[in-house]
This record gives sequence, C-alpha cells and structure tokens, in this order.
Amino acid sequence: MRAAVLTGIKQVRLEDRPEPQARPGWVVVRVESASLCGTDSHQYDGRIDTPFPRVPGHDFAGRVESVADGGDESLIGAHFAVKPSLPCGDCPECARGQLADCNRKKLIGLWSDGCLAEKIAVPQVNLVPRPEGVQDWQACLLEPLAVGLNTVDRLRIMLGETVVVLGQGPIGLAVTRLCALSGAGRLMVTDAREAPFAVSRAYGATDCLNVTQTDAVKAVAELTSGAGADIVIETSGFPASSAIVLDCVRKEGKVAHIGWANDLPPLPVIPIMAKTLTVFGVGGNGGRGQYERSIELVRSGRIDLGPMVTHRFALDDIAAAFETAASKAEGAIKVVVRP
Amino acid sequence: MRAAVLTGIKQVRLEDRPEPQARPGWVVVRVESASLCGTDSHQYDGRIDTPFPRVPGHDFAGRVESVADGGDESLIGAHFAVKPSLPCGDCPECARGQLADCNRKKLIGLWSDGCLAEKIAVPQVNLVPRPEGVQDWQACLLEPLAVGLNTVDRLRIMLGETVVVLGQGPIGLAVTRLCALSGAGRLMVTDAREAPFAVSRAYGATDCLNVTQTDAVKAVAELTSGAGADIVIETSGFPASSAIVLDCVRKEGKVAHIGWANDLPPLPVIPIMAKTLTVFGVGGNGGRGQYERSIELVRSGRIDLGPMVTHRFALDDIAAAFETAASKAEGAIKVVVRP
Amino acid sequence: MRAAVLTGIKQVRLEDRPEPQARPGWVVVRVESASLCGTDSHQYDGRIDTPFPRVPGHDFAGRVESVADGGDESLIGAHFAVKPSLPCGDCPECARGQLADCNRKKLIGLWSDGCLAEKIAVPQVNLVPRPEGVQDWQACLLEPLAVGLNTVDRLRIMLGETVVVLGQGPIGLAVTRLCALSGAGRLMVTDAREAPFAVSRAYGATDCLNVTQTDAVKAVAELTSGAGADIVIETSGFPASSAIVLDCVRKEGKVAHIGWANDLPPLPVIPIMAKTLTVFGVGGNGGRGQYERSIELVRSGRIDLGPMVTHRFALDDIAAAFETAASKAEGAIKVVVRP
Amino acid sequence: MRAAVLTGIKQVRLEDRPEPQARPGWVVVRVESASLCGTDSHQYDGRIDTPFPRVPGHDFAGRVESVADGGDESLIGAHFAVKPSLPCGDCPECARGQLADCNRKKLIGLWSDGCLAEKIAVPQVNLVPRPEGVQDWQACLLEPLAVGLNTVDRLRIMLGETVVVLGQGPIGLAVTRLCALSGAGRLMVTDAREAPFAVSRAYGATDCLNVTQTDAVKAVAELTSGAGADIVIETSGFPASSAIVLDCVRKEGKVAHIGWANDLPPLPVIPIMAKTLTVFGVGGNGGRGQYERSIELVRSGRIDLGPMVTHRFALDDIAAAFETAASKAEGAIKVVVRP
Repeated sequence: MRAAVLTGIKQVRLEDRPEPQARPGWVVVRVESASLCGTDSHQYDGRIDTPFPRVPGHDFAGRVESVADGGDESLIGAHFAVKPSLPCGDCPECARGQLADCNRKKLIGLWSDGCLAEKIAVPQVNLVPRPEGVQDWQACLLEPLAVGLNTVDRLRIMLGETVVVLGQGPIGLAVTRLCALSGAGRLMVTDAREAPFAVSRAYGATDCLNVTQTDAVKAVAELTSGAGADIVIETSGFPASSAIVLDCVRKEGKVAHIGWANDLPPLPVIPIMAKTLTVFGVGGNGGRGQYERSIELVRSGRIDLGPMVTHRFALDDIAAAFETAASKAEGAIKVVVRP
Repeated sequence: MRAAVLTGIKQVRLEDRPEPQARPGWVVVRVESASLCGTDSHQYDGRIDTPFPRVPGHDFAGRVESVADGGDESLIGAHFAVKPSLPCGDCPECARGQLADCNRKKLIGLWSDGCLAEKIAVPQVNLVPRPEGVQDWQACLLEPLAVGLNTVDRLRIMLGETVVVLGQGPIGLAVTRLCALSGAGRLMVTDAREAPFAVSRAYGATDCLNVTQTDAVKAVAELTSGAGADIVIETSGFPASSAIVLDCVRKEGKVAHIGWANDLPPLPVIPIMAKTLTVFGVGGNGGRGQYERSIELVRSGRIDLGPMVTHRFALDDIAAAFETAASKAEGAIKVVVRP
Repeated sequence: MRAAVLTGIKQVRLEDRPEPQARPGWVVVRVESASLCGTDSHQYDGRIDTPFPRVPGHDFAGRVESVADGGDESLIGAHFAVKPSLPCGDCPECARGQLADCNRKKLIGLWSDGCLAEKIAVPQVNLVPRPEGVQDWQACLLEPLAVGLNTVDRLRIMLGETVVVLGQGPIGLAVTRLCALSGAGRLMVTDAREAPFAVSRAYGATDCLNVTQTDAVKAVAELTSGAGADIVIETSGFPASSAIVLDCVRKEGKVAHIGWANDLPPLPVIPIMAKTLTVFGVGGNGGRGQYERSIELVRSGRIDLGPMVTHRFALDDIAAAFETAASKAEGAIKVVVRP
Repeated sequence: MRAAVLTGIKQVRLEDRPEPQARPGWVVVRVESASLCGTDSHQYDGRIDTPFPRVPGHDFAGRVESVADGGDESLIGAHFAVKPSLPCGDCPECARGQLADCNRKKLIGLWSDGCLAEKIAVPQVNLVPRPEGVQDWQACLLEPLAVGLNTVDRLRIMLGETVVVLGQGPIGLAVTRLCALSGAGRLMVTDAREAPFAVSRAYGATDCLNVTQTDAVKAVAELTSGAGADIVIETSGFPASSAIVLDCVRKEGKVAHIGWANDLPPLPVIPIMAKTLTVFGVGGNGGRGQYERSIELVRSGRIDLGPMVTHRFALDDIAAAFETAASKAEGAIKVVVRP
C-alpha cells in the first residue's frame, strides 16, 4: 500500500509499504481522511525529534477493513473516528487487557507508524463510532476539540465570565468555540495573523486582538474595566504570548496552559500568589470520553468545522500538504489529506 | 401618588397613597417598569396568603428621585434595576449596617408594600445600575434570570450534557436560555401549553414536549437512548411535573427543584439512592451577584427578553394586568406594567 | 466443600457443595474470613427477597487457590480482599472484556452463590491485594468503609464543619470514623442502642444521642446554636430517623441518604428548596478505587476495625452467627465468620 | 503609652507614644498578647521594605478599652482576636461603609502602626470574639491557621491522599496540622532544621525529611512507590525548596505555593502541562470566615498551639524578642510578646 514517509527534516515522500495486519484485539482501518496538526508540522520541520523513517499522522477517520481471527466481524465496513494514542503494552493495565486504561499511551505517527497511509492497524478500543451526518473530513479533526474539552471541563466557566484565548491556531480556535458554547461572556482572542479572526468571530469571539498591532495586556485591561479577565487560556506556544498570561488575568482568576514549546518562559511565583490564582496545565485530550463528546458536538451542528479547513490534498500531494501546514501559507489553518 | 392595592382575593384597585420618604441608607425610586410574576398572581388568586390591603409587586426598574438627608445626591436621576428583597432590620448583620449580608430578607410586595405604584422607597444596597443599552422594561424582568443563574451555577453543566427543563413559564424559559448558554447538549422542555414553545425554541430548546399529548418520561427516555437525562430541572410547581423528575434523570445524574407549590408530591428516597442522584433545592436568587450578571447578559444581547413579554399595561389598567397574568389568557407569559 | 445455605426465611444450614471452578479471567478463592452485613441479615429474616436455596455472603477475604487454564499462576497463594459485586456478563463493557467497567454489577450472595463457604470463584478484577499488616478478619470488613468513602468523597467536608450521622450500625460507625478523619468539627451521632456509642466515641464522635431518650432534632439545634448542622448523613434506614434529616440540617447545608429500607418516608420538596439544600443519594461503594483506599486506611492504622467486631463464629456455627447478627443481641455490631 | 518602634534595619526600641483614639466604627484595644511572624522578622532584618519609624506587629489578641462616641459600649471589656488587615478607606466598598468587603486591605504594622504596643485602634469589623477556653496567647497565633485554612479549603484533600509540606516554620506547621485533620494519608514534611520535627510529628506528620541530609525528591518518590505525592504545598519561601515542588508531585496532582520571597525560582511550564497539574497560589488568609474557624479549631482542642510557642517575652524585652525570632536561635518557632 502507499504511505507518506518522513525520511528526514523537511523530507517527505510516498513509499510502498506492506499491508498492515490485525493482531488480536486490533483492527485494520482504511484511512478516509487525515488532518495535519502542529505535531506533524514540527516532526517535519525538526522541532520535534522523530525516529526517521516514520509514517506520520495521528488524527484520522476511516472504515474498518479487517479484524483479527476470531474478532468481531460486525465491525467490518463500519465508519469510525480513531483516537490517536496507542496503549503501551507494558504496564499492568495493558497486561490485564484493559488497553483503554493504559496511562502511558504513545502517539501514533511519532512512536509508531501513523495514519498518512492507505491503511493502518489500531486497537479496537481506539475506535469511536462515526454517526450518520458526520463526514469523514470532520471526524479527522477531533483532536483539537478533545484537547479543548479537556481544558474547559477543568476550568468550569461560570455563565458570563470573561475569557481570553491567546493564539488562534486550530487548538485556539477550538477552545474559542468551546468557551463560547460553555457560557463565556466577553470572549477576547489574540493572534499574530488576521487570517483566523474571521473564524474566531464565527466561533463566538467578541474581540480579536492582533498582537502585531495591539498591546494585548492593555487591551484586555480596557475591555475588563481594569480588572483583568476571569480566565486566560494560552494555546499558542509562543514565548511572547505565554509571558503575558499572568498580566491578563484578574485577581482570584484562572489560567490554563495548553500551548507547548521548549522555549516557553517560566512562570514567576509571586504574581500567582499575590493574585491568588489557579493555574491549570493541560497535557492532552484526557482520554475520558472527550472524543465521544467531540463527535456529538460536530453531529449536532454546535461546532462547524468547515471554516477551519483551509486546504485539502490527495495523498499523492503529501509534500505540498506538509509545506502548506508548516509554513501556514495562504492563511492555512487546517490541512486535510484524503488517501 | 397612585398605587395598585390588593384588598382581597381577586380584588385589586388604584388608590391614592402618601409619597414614600427615604430613611438613612435608603432612596426613593420612581418606578419606570414593573413585571408581574407568579408570586403576584398567587397573592391575587389567594394561593399565597397576603396581609390585605397590600401594594403588590417586587420585580422592577426605576430612577432615583430622592435620597435621605446626607445621602449620596449623585444617585438622583440615575437608572437602576432593584433587587426585590429587603433586609430584615433585626439580625446581627442589619444591626451592623451590613444590609446586603442580611440572611432573612423579606420580599417586598408581600411583607411590605411593593413596586406597583408610582414610587417606592428601597435601601441603597438594593440598586443595580442599569447600563446604557438596557431598557427599563428589560430591567424589570431580572428575577427569573437571577433565580435561573442561582440554579445553573450550582448544577455546573458540562459541555454537551443533556438537560430537561420541566415547565416553560417565565422561570422555566429563563432556565432554558441559561442552560443553552451554559453548554447544554440536547435540551428538552415540557409544558402543558403550546404558546411558550416558540420562545423555548428561540432560546435553544431542541425538543418541546407538550405533556397534554406526550408521555414526557417515555419521550425523554427515547431521546436519550434509554439512559435518561444528565440533568432535570423542575420549574413548573405542578404536582404531575414534580412527580416525574426522578424518572427522567439518568443514573448518577443531577436534579434541581425550583417550582414551588404547597401541593408538590414528596420525593421517594429509594430512587435517589439507587440512582446515586444529587438533588439541588433552589430557594431564590442567591443574592450573590446574580442580578449584576443577569443585567449584563441582557446588555450583551445574549438573552433577548422581548419574546417573553406578551402583554403590557398602564398602571390604570392594573385589574386587566392581574387578570391576564393570573389566567395566562392569550398565551400570556410575562405581563409588564408601566406606571 | 462445605457451604452455608439459606433454604428459607430464618433457615440456614451447612451443605456439601461441589468445588467451584475458575472460568477464563476468574480465580478460585479459599475464604479466610467473611463478615455478615445488613443485607445478609435481611435475606435471612425475609426483608430482602432471595431466591432460595442460596449461599449468602459477599464481604470477605481469602487466598487464591487456583486460576483458569492459561491464567496468571503467580496469583496462587496470594492474599486478597474481594470486591462483592460481579460483572453482569451481558452489557457492552462485559462483552468487550472490560469487566471492571460493568455498570450493572450484581451482588454475590444474593444474585449468585456467595462467600459463606469454603471456596468461591470470582473474576480476577474483583481482587484487591491484602498488604502485609492487614489481617484477613480486617480485610473482610471493607464494604462499610467503601460505602462510607463513596459518601464522604461526594460531601467534601470543609475542615470544622458540623456533621450529624444518624444511626450507628456498621455503616454509620464507618461513616463516623471517616467524617472524623476528613475534618468534621462537632460530630454528633444518634442510635437507639447505647452499645455502639463506645465505638462512636473511639471513632471521634463528640456527642452521642440516644433517640429513645433524647429528641435528636432539638439536641442538634442546641449543639449548633440553633443553626442546624452543616451536613446530615442518614445511615440507619429507619423511618423515624429518615424523617428528621431535613430538620437537622442548616440552611444551604448538605444531606446524604445511605440507609436503605422499603418503608422510608419520602422527602418533602418545600424544605429542600426553602433551605437551599443539596441532597446526595448514595447507592453503594462507588467501585472507583474506594476498596483500595479502604484497605490502606486499615493498614495505616487510621481506622481500627477491632471495636466493631463483637462476635466471631466458625462456619459450623453459621446458624448462631445469623441469629446474632439479625437480632443484634448482646450489643452485636459486626459478626465475623471463619470457614 | 509604650510601644515598640522599628527605627531602622535591626533597630527596635521602646518609645512613648500618644494614646490611640477610636474613630466612628473603630475601637481601642488593649493588647494582651502579640506574636511575631516572618513579616515582622523581615521588616526587622530589612528583607521587607518598611517606612521607618514604624510600630510593627499584626497578629494579636486583646480587650476592648474604649469605643467611639455613639459606638457599641457593650464591647468594652470583651476579649477578641483581631484580624490583621485594615480596610483601605478609599475603594467603593469602604465608601459605602462595607469595611469588611474591602479588597485592598493593608497589613497593620507595615502600612500603619501595629500591635506591638500597649494599645491600638482598629475597626470593629476586625474583631473576632475570643470564646471561653481560648487564652490570649492562643488568640494571637491565628494568622498561620487562617492562611493554612485558605490553602486546604482550596486543595480539597480526599481522604487518604498523600501530602508533602515543604518547610516547617509556623505556617508549614499549621498547614501540616490542618492537612492531618483534613484527611491526609501519608503526610511528609521537610525542613532544614531538626527542631520543628517534634512538633510536626505531634501534628500528624508521618515522615520528616531533613533536607540537609536527605534528597527530598528521592525520598518522596520512594515513599510514594515512585508515583509522587497527590498534593505538594510549599510554605518555606526558600528557592531550593520551591524548585522541587514540581518534581515531588504526581501526574494530575495539585500544588500550592504559600511561601513568599523575592528570590523564588520561576515555575517551568512544560512539567505543569506534561503532568496535567493544578497550581494554587495562596496570597493570604482569605478573609472569609477563616479566622472564626481557626479560633474554633483552637477552642475545641483540635489544634494545640502550645508546642509552637518556644519563646515568650515582655514588651520591655522587645529587642531580644526580635533577635530570637529573626535568628531562629534555640529552636525558635513562635515568639509571643505580652505588653
């Protein structure tokens, strides 16, 4: 079968690979749609170390093509979104066969070959049924929603609270939409590009602050009558953005950090104490029902993923797909690949 | 000044009353708009005992006309919504002058003469500034929102949870809108009249169940794949509605009771234990910032109170106003009176 | 092997039964100690319907004697406490082999033959390792602790809050101890017998109210300066006790119901609303780590189960064991049986 | 009257000062006992900037000696603990006379003259009644308890959770006791001195780690089977201690920072995200009932403050008192001064 393979930094090409086989408890999925996320881009441009050669990709949807001997054949032909992390296979939970409870799951496409291929084998516990009315290109975009849910679940927004979302990449946009749906009052967002703001507004942002033109700290202070926001969520992973989190939040407010990068500035302790803040670190999608709830939000139409998808490519054009995603050229937000 | 006076059951008339005076810490408010709520109707039809004669009314907005000697004269002429309960004057908090902290507040219009008059004296701590963009007829409709906020604040809805709101009177409609804004997924509502459902839908209800035609328990079961709703909120105060609360909620779900009537059936304990439920009793508007947040929800346009106001009367037509509110004739939801 | 068998109401006798066998995923446990709880007593005296003949008993500890073919032989000889409910075998979770996630577990000793026998087969997921320093007679008494933890976890006692525990049977005593450990301030308990109060006091109760001599509502009011308790937990399952719960709790307080009986009076809704209460129904031991935490509380010595065990019997004396437990004769609290 | 006056760094002496007078809403308190805390020591040794000359001291108990004209004369002669911060007098809350609600309170002894004198005037809202059975030397030690309550209230310890308290100065010891009372399981504490560990153990610590001899991170890992603690609370304000907080806590655990110093190392963001942590900054005593609850914990005997008081001085010996407190000589923990 054909598969995209990262062979080095900024080097990706199509290769012919052997067909995957289903071990007991696993199934082979024919990939219908996959999306590129920041992790893929960073594997491509070298900001994340990757054992080359590697088939990248982890956020995808597909159709079950085969099951292991003795497996549940009723799955064959059914459509699913697929959770992106594999059970480690080594821990006590895995040993007991409770793969879903593994605490050391590993992202596919990084620690093992991923979904930017025609087919891939995954454990059955990774499958999330794709209901009628949800398209495959939507079901391949669930990870930002699941990460966002894992964030807003913990923040417990009270109806009318003011929220700042720093960064309007895919996760920032997903968080913006989820905060709007969860009762945020004034909902301020920042980015260094104008491109995403049209989506931000459609998702419920009330104020879009371009940090290349506006002092975000000052703007947030003005928009909150000097008090600061009730909640500030940093999603960009940019040092300059991470550095202003504690300045944007009000006394006794809440802060969340999702944006991940090695060069983020550390947080000073004094303002966290002086303002009596609560700081939430968010390290992934939680894995406790967030995927199922994400797909329901898409199904019910409460989140329209359409505006996020700016580019679509065939697997044959994987090099162009990666270049677009990594460069964020032409206002790129989300790039979808259909094998 | 002119005032509406309840003189007996189903007896209301205009009388001339002396002008109110402001004691220290109090102000005289010229009433701009007042709304009738279920309490007013029940005082009128005798379901709530009232010491006649009594000027009814407690949900209103107005303009400060005078302050006590030595009071803050900058308030004169400013516009406010007014919180409906008076400090008792007797408790330790009142004795210390901390009127806002009184735990035994008493509703005006019931325990003292109310707002269905040209003017009324209230403590300064009861004033909530009416911001630009909020009309007086909107500011006289805050109590259902404040009660609703006091409910959803405690329920802490998770994004996507299924909610049933039993009853679509003013409080039921307010709760429906607040649940929609707070992240409810499927949002089912019930009533015995079709009239309010147009508003319910505009406010975000996904399923409107007319209990004269539909078995609500069965319908909720079907709409939740047999599981029951995550959250059930009873607002109607009708025995038949209160009786199905525990049947509509899922295992480990949450229940809230707001609808108040003397003839509500008691709750059996076994299903509360067997289903591991949490039951929240809601006894009012909380009085901890809910009014301020309600007016902001109106100002920002997130709640459009227009569809709730079905009838408007002048103070001269107070008899017709009460008759309309009490009989719920012509699809009446909220009746506003402008002195 | 020998087993106690309930053959009718108040009829229990020893029988010879076939040795149990371990299906895949199951193990055979040699019972070291078992305790009788209220459910066993009520099966015996007919207050709980039981399909006779039935081997009763569900709270026990033992040693693994054999595993299924291909099972983990390292378990053989190891000591465990055993969780008392079996996966249903029918639900989607059971179908997927995730037995621990079954939502319809069924109590052994009631829905299937139980532990008052020399041996019993149970699923491996029901085993909780018994650490060094915990004796088998202690490990057979974990259910009241697990139920109690499932209660106090949800109540989230703030340090110094006043608590009333109604009923001082084994669950009431366990709850008393857990509340004391969790920060309760004044800790009032009630019972109709003097016998358990010595244990109550050792467990941290500050005030023991004998309801045959004292008006508990009045006493709680006096002990709380008229305010009522912050938290009231009903564990007795007696109608007269259940009836006073709402009278003992303060405004904005919390209530929990654990005590289970068919003749409990229902809860009036008005006081739940008027007092703005939160009512927690507790339907079991939660099954989310409560057993593991219970055994650690015993191991660390923070709960001394000794004072609860008033009687010990050999399996040969099962009739006397049941009669003592059911009659609560001689100050009986917990009866332990060692096959 | 006599008063201790800081006239410069490490310079303190007795002076004769004019008698304080009670403004409206204020009272004059005759100081019965005062304690020195870290703030006092740091004002003395120059680590906190102080406008000299200044009468230091803020944690104290006394007897009301006089009230303002027209004030409540029944207060005269009554005994109180006194909250240590004064309303600012400038904010909207102060303008409305709601002094207790001021959000910009200022510590006495730093921003105004303090309690290390024979008498001091304070607002009536700062008085906390000292009940029978609580001595004045106990009532002058409430601040560490109030700060500790403000911490454990937010951490919401689940019964049996493992806790590490870094630093065993007065606040660290208070937190240790409060965690033990709140249900902590294994309760590990650290300090660089052996002296406080006797108190730590009496307060419920299970493991005392002297950081001059033990690698605390390694020890905590061992004591928690490699997982890390559920909760880590840094109270010392020492850089080396603050630096290990994130290494001691488990995945999905909680962290609190109370220890305040200008040279604390900042917190890296990556581990906060990677471990999905929640970080609580604690900036004071909360001012929402914590003093009242603290005095009740002392009254009921649940906290024995005796072991914390290592030194007592008369006001005449104020220089020795400060030298002892600042140098922590002779195992000093708390120094009490009786004017």
